[in-house]
Amino acid sequence: MPFAEKAYKANKTVFHLNIGQPDIKSPQLAMDAVANHNLEILAYTRSEGSEPYRAKIADYHKRNHIMVEADNIIVTTGGSEALLFAMGSVADTGDEIIIPEPFYANYNGFATASGVNIVPVISKIEDNFALPPIQEFEKLITPKTKAILICNPGNPTGYLYSKEEIKILAEIVKKHDLFLIADEVYREFTYDNLKHYSILEEEGLDQNAIIIDSVSKRYSMCGARIGCIVSKNKEVMSAAMKFAQARLSPPTFAQIASEAALNTPQSYFDEVIVEYKERRDTLIEKLEEIPGVQVGHPKGAFYCIAQLPIKNSDAFAQWLLEEFDVDGETIMVAPAAGFYSSPGVGLNQIRIAYVLNKESLIKAVNILKKALEVYKD
Amino acid sequence: MPFAEKAYKANKTVFHLNIGQPDIKSPQLAMDAVANHNLEILAYTRSEGSEPYRAKIADYHKRNHIMVEADNIIVTTGGSEALLFAMGSVADTGDEIIIPEPFYANYNGFATASGVNIVPVISKIEDNFALPPIQEFEKLITPKTKAILICNPGNPTGYLYSKEEIKILAEIVKKHDLFLIADEVYREFTYDNLKHYSILEEEGLDQNAIIIDSVSKRYSMCGARIGCIVSKNKEVMSAAMKFAQARLSPPTFAQIASEAALNTPQSYFDEVIVEYKERRDTLIEKLEEIPGVQVGHPKGAFYCIAQLPIKNSDAFAQWLLEEFDVDGETIMVAPAAGFYSSPGVGLNQIRIAYVLNKESLIKAVNILKKALEVYKD
Repeated sequence: MPFAEKAYKANKTVFHLNIGQPDIKSPQLAMDAVANHNLEILAYTRSEGSEPYRAKIADYHKRNHIMVEADNIIVTTGGSEALLFAMGSVADTGDEIIIPEPFYANYNGFATASGVNIVPVISKIEDNFALPPIQEFEKLITPKTKAILICNPGNPTGYLYSKEEIKILAEIVKKHDLFLIADEVYREFTYDNLKHYSILEEEGLDQNAIIIDSVSKRYSMCGARIGCIVSKNKEVMSAAMKFAQARLSPPTFAQIASEAALNTPQSYFDEVIVEYKERRDTLIEKLEEIPGVQVGHPKGAFYCIAQLPIKNSDAFAQWLLEEFDVDGETIMVAPAAGFYSSPGVGLNQIRIAYVLNKESLIKAVNILKKALEVYKD
Repeated sequence: MPFAEKAYKANKTVFHLNIGQPDIKSPQLAMDAVANHNLEILAYTRSEGSEPYRAKIADYHKRNHIMVEADNIIVTTGGSEALLFAMGSVADTGDEIIIPEPFYANYNGFATASGVNIVPVISKIEDNFALPPIQEFEKLITPKTKAILICNPGNPTGYLYSKEEIKILAEIVKKHDLFLIADEVYREFTYDNLKHYSILEEEGLDQNAIIIDSVSKRYSMCGARIGCIVSKNKEVMSAAMKFAQARLSPPTFAQIASEAALNTPQSYFDEVIVEYKERRDTLIEKLEEIPGVQVGHPKGAFYCIAQLPIKNSDAFAQWLLEEFDVDGETIMVAPAAGFYSSPGVGLNQIRIAYVLNKESLIKAVNILKKALEVYKD
């Protein structure tokens, strides 16, 4: 973020609305487990992750109605690596994966690294980023298409796919013999009494479904770099295992923290979810008070897309840092164009992560409001 | 290792000569640093690694006559990731990297993942795996050649390249405008009063040299999964940084351990090196007592290649586990064919890692001796 540095040099206070690093404390029992470690040799674990940890991950999934065993799980170095292994396992160079856009920008990096071409299907802010009509997917399927990838709940949209939408996706991947890869790292964070429906809860999808998971957001442990790939498809797991062996093992201390984190009581999530919901409500309310701003209504995760009455949010984001402040304070936002694969789409949108406390969020949106009053592009 | 499982089921004791997981204790100060952590949020670090850690890595290198700054360093998730970033940064799909064989088998995995073709140049046990004649390299250089990759001291050979050999390599990479990538993770482990000479000690090689490093073996911290890529070439570092950003950050706890490990006193290494040297001497002496066995004489790291009076060490390794024991004890060895890229080479060789204590090594070589007395292939 080269232009962020300039703002710091000007001694402005910058509210970071642009990054997904939660300010929520990690579960104390996970931090304690590492503090109480008694390792004399910090050794490799198995490439697929430590055995007790994998067994406990399976238990966690069962509690969430996802009937998997330790054998269906490979522990990875973050959800990032799980995505890389998944893409590498289902696709060869030149193959295609269809992804509803806007999507998590780093999918591009993993696709490039895997030689995979991302084929975007546009979801719209007017529809709150719901699943695009199934015929839009059908149009894009070619012999090179190997998978559909969704993020549920979505980064950057906060959209939570309904059970019905998952069933529609299940039908199409079965019909065309594709994989359905679901990034479910925000699974716990759903609001308005809506429940997350996992692709592995869907009957008959065992051989097509691949879940990407991570402890990063669930336990506010982004720095652990622990995730996993979950699939009942033996060929997929066998291919993923080859990638896992090549990089030897996931980090050991972080597996200790992550295994302990699985004992986190429900009360932790209840509190966190109340906190995120209040932030979301505050954020959306304040954003909608700004003339000309249109907002997607997130039902999960902790992001929303806001469409602004400007032409180019990239230039706007830079201007906010370099040339604007309210009493020495400004904001950093993520221009949404980076979340679209189709060129020229989303240029007037930004992604806001509500990982700041309410007071900071209110200040930040007020800065955005004042900025839009004077900004000309 | 599917055939390892069978041996365990038969309740045999297996001496693992096949893996590079040292039995040496990690430095207590590194383990303590993690035990004393006071993190409330296990957050991402910067993608290139935490700033104080990178500054200290630069100091470490300067103490080793490698004049680099923090900007020349990207912290990676293990030496594995450093290799992946290096290959991805210097080569495009279909490009070639020349590597003296036998070489660390996982180089194949990183090459495949990067779409890079490995072009092997054979080094020979009769020459103790010294650098092959430079004309052998010249013969293999094509317009697609982007780099020469060495491991120094070598896994699996234990060979330590001399200053003169590094100078020869420096000449050829400069002449043909190639990169010289050196995996120097075993730098500290040299014997017989020989000193490691880094490619970044060589004058005039700044723009060609890329060092791969790791804390795994140096501090017996394989489970940290922390390494780094070191280069003064800004284009290389800028490309590597893109890979680093895609996977967000290296693990946080492990960086705490690795930063503390940089304060490890020289006495730790002195003791470890004495231990490894004694093991090496014992191992080589005992191996050479076995009729028909030829051994490379390692000058560094903790591996050696032994050539056995058999035809196929893969079948022999399997037989050792499944069908042989001495009073309920057997050994697991790494067939060396996996370390050669040329088909049919090294079939009668094995790699032995001397990461067991002397007593176990003596027992293990005795088992090998008795096995060779009865084995028929």
